[in-house]
Amino acid sequence: MSLENLPKAHLAPVVALAPVRELPPPVHTDLSTEHLHPSLEDPALNSMNFLNEVANHYPDAVSLAAGRPFEEFWDLDELPRYLARFSEYLRDERGYSEERVRRTLFQYGRTKGIVHELVAANLELDEGVSVDPESIVVTVGCQEAMVLVLRALRSGPKDVLLAVSPTYVGLTGAARLVDMPVLPVASGAAGVDLDDLLTQIQRARTAGLRPRGCYVMPDFANPSGVSMPETTRRALLSLAREEDFLLLEDNPYGLFHGDTRRVPTLKALDAGRRVVYLGSFAKTVLPGARVGYVVADQTVTASDGTVGLFADELSKIKSMLTVNTPALAQAIVGGKLLEHGCSLVAATRREREVYAANRTRIVEGLAARFGEGSRVSWNVPAGGFFVVVTVPFPVDDELLTRSARDYGVLWTPMYHFYDTGADGGDGVRSLRLSCSTVNAAQIDTGLDRLARLVNDELARKQGAPVALTRAGDLS
Amino acid sequence: MSLENLPKAHLAPVVALAPVRELPPPVHTDLSTEHLHPSLEDPALNSMNFLNEVANHYPDAVSLAAGRPFEEFWDLDELPRYLARFSEYLRDERGYSEERVRRTLFQYGRTKGIVHELVAANLELDEGVSVDPESIVVTVGCQEAMVLVLRALRSGPKDVLLAVSPTYVGLTGAARLVDMPVLPVASGAAGVDLDDLLTQIQRARTAGLRPRGCYVMPDFANPSGVSMPETTRRALLSLAREEDFLLLEDNPYGLFHGDTRRVPTLKALDAGRRVVYLGSFAKTVLPGARVGYVVADQTVTASDGTVGLFADELSKIKSMLTVNTPALAQAIVGGKLLEHGCSLVAATRREREVYAANRTRIVEGLAARFGEGSRVSWNVPAGGFFVVVTVPFPVDDELLTRSARDYGVLWTPMYHFYDTGADGGDGVRSLRLSCSTVNAAQIDTGLDRLARLVNDELARKQGAPVALTRAGDLS
Repeated sequence: MSLENLPKAHLAPVVALAPVRELPPPVHTDLSTEHLHPSLEDPALNSMNFLNEVANHYPDAVSLAAGRPFEEFWDLDELPRYLARFSEYLRDERGYSEERVRRTLFQYGRTKGIVHELVAANLELDEGVSVDPESIVVTVGCQEAMVLVLRALRSGPKDVLLAVSPTYVGLTGAARLVDMPVLPVASGAAGVDLDDLLTQIQRARTAGLRPRGCYVMPDFANPSGVSMPETTRRALLSLAREEDFLLLEDNPYGLFHGDTRRVPTLKALDAGRRVVYLGSFAKTVLPGARVGYVVADQTVTASDGTVGLFADELSKIKSMLTVNTPALAQAIVGGKLLEHGCSLVAATRREREVYAANRTRIVEGLAARFGEGSRVSWNVPAGGFFVVVTVPFPVDDELLTRSARDYGVLWTPMYHFYDTGADGGDGVRSLRLSCSTVNAAQIDTGLDRLARLVNDELARKQGAPVALTRAGDLS
Repeated sequence: MSLENLPKAHLAPVVALAPVRELPPPVHTDLSTEHLHPSLEDPALNSMNFLNEVANHYPDAVSLAAGRPFEEFWDLDELPRYLARFSEYLRDERGYSEERVRRTLFQYGRTKGIVHELVAANLELDEGVSVDPESIVVTVGCQEAMVLVLRALRSGPKDVLLAVSPTYVGLTGAARLVDMPVLPVASGAAGVDLDDLLTQIQRARTAGLRPRGCYVMPDFANPSGVSMPETTRRALLSLAREEDFLLLEDNPYGLFHGDTRRVPTLKALDAGRRVVYLGSFAKTVLPGARVGYVVADQTVTASDGTVGLFADELSKIKSMLTVNTPALAQAIVGGKLLEHGCSLVAATRREREVYAANRTRIVEGLAARFGEGSRVSWNVPAGGFFVVVTVPFPVDDELLTRSARDYGVLWTPMYHFYDTGADGGDGVRSLRLSCSTVNAAQIDTGLDRLARLVNDELARKQGAPVALTRAGDLS
């Protein structure tokens, strides 16, 4: 279809115009970031892009960076099977007519979701958490759940969030979208430094701010790999009650605990509805469904005195953000839950074993390459996807780019997980290794290359000449 | 699993406590809307809930309210077929390996989406719009697209949006979530009153505000049913250029044009990248996939002078809002597009005929029931889902509730589509009828009931006694 480009009133007589080919091309600088939301020039929103770009630019590098789940057990045939299983459930267990089954999958529907009862059953079985399904909002991944909660809690410029630092970058990004400052709290060995938390709260209040909640990932945190002992969890709950703030508990990795006994989640220990629980099926079912959820069983009193559930307030926001979590995506997750009697413990056994073996191989591989007396150290997480390596020099994007280009190995500079200003940003001397998408041979190669990079850096700092090698030579 | 409810430090010695059953129940007023985001008590976020509640409370009432698409042609077997078709396309047309196909569907992926090339082909074929697929962001329904655009454009408290009033409530709701005021612009018979638009812009600027864009639905608008003539579209584009604001064009109903010739979209007429185009597959494919998109081909200059696409800025926001539009949902929409050679014109022929026949039946049915000399009037939209009926009394939620309870018919009070303050809110004397989910018999019954309600209201206003009938008597 050919369409005219300009209203007639704007066309000068043709004879008066220079030949078209000689006109300078129009300069369309349509917008500038100066007049767009400040988050768009914020490091939090640009970290992911930068890291993805490096990975895309060096596709042959071994990736110890990607936090994606292990994918080799997936099969395309699962998808229609899950859809069929969920339809069968609606028909046979819920008594839906054929028409209503079709409507449930194809149409707009319940804002809080259609798998909420299956999610509640899963929480009961796998986490020992009993919640009213009405207090669950099924979301487009855990990311939307975080946005809903922060959007609700940020009533004005005084409201601030606390977060254990280093922090998952998606949390910081969500906070940026709702203009909510995030105050860092030290992690320490226990996953949260309670003294520092109290100090930060008191300091914020003195500054006229209202700390509304503290974001934590108590199990095998991204990026630190650190977990909270049960005593710390109980003390954190007490502090939240005493100081009157919410705990935002994010738990994407809980099932990947390796050989260690699982510690109860904060939500399982929560008698006072202090915990807003953020859940995800991205790592336990599949990321491509983008199904997460939030348990928000707090009560909310409206200005007219009526009392409702926080989940229903979040649902109102969701109705204006994404309307519904795609019913088809929920059906696929629902089908998998149903196939496994709503428990994902057995369903994720193979992945749990892969991650545990990979973590062990990374930790032992680091020990073999950075022996006694080395100035390189690392932690030994009990579960999850990540190991943090500390080196005696700053780890920045320039080093990552050189690592990818010259050594053929990708990892993630830890500074990306520290909010601007906190911990000096570019002075952070650690990097994150991920165990989730690699096999044993890739781990070995990746660690060989990392060791060469680190040793070359150490030599460079000491003024020794470094013979640069190309990634191609290292395979 | 039984879990302790309280940290030990908080347990007083048991002997000192009164028997548990005599303790007053704890009063957990955990939160109050006073300290939550103001949107949560805003009418824009509560309209949808109220309307859904009325519909749920009176399930046997005939619904001339629901804006859902016609569902009788859908078949559960389509879903695995679409998934298979999209996988085949990745394999055969894009040359993906089996592993990469699986990864594309199951894993995290490209933030801007995986069906962008099919969407671009669809826009070329069905709208005569040629855009670089890189300027498309595939979103979780058109609702997320609106949020992305408004979040980007709202850089501070001076930024305001204009919108033709009455306005789709989802737009107003999205604006509330980003704290962006929406200034109403008169619609008039042409879908936008350009004199009023200019007046509103000048008035806003005088007040120190920055009008960033004007939201319009040029084809068969929700809720008014009104469409813009081509001359109005061209004049609107000129005005946008002269006054330097963006046009946000929302086009969910364009394919449902009945017998009339289609008018080019604003985007098809847009030579200067003035139009941000909001697209949806909710009405043309299926709502349960929640796949929409935004075409944002504007350039953006960053503070460091680099120039990028507005789509890439929106993508950054999306990465912190939902990360990805579910790949599985995109695959289903992609499969349908592929089955129809990327054009939905032929694929939606049956639905187009249903909507056209229903609109005609509603309009003719209104004429039959409210004859010459009646104080009831209505418009005759050339396409889309909606007809607006004007009556000589205010139409509020109380009237809707009585209509549902006592007359057995649901419709939508138009006042919900006027932003608070504009047009006096509760003085609006019109209601919206939807033709999209009903058959001929339901339309006849619904209009009979509506006519009885209206006539009873007229009699009531004139002081005549009204014999109340129950919905059950009317079937």
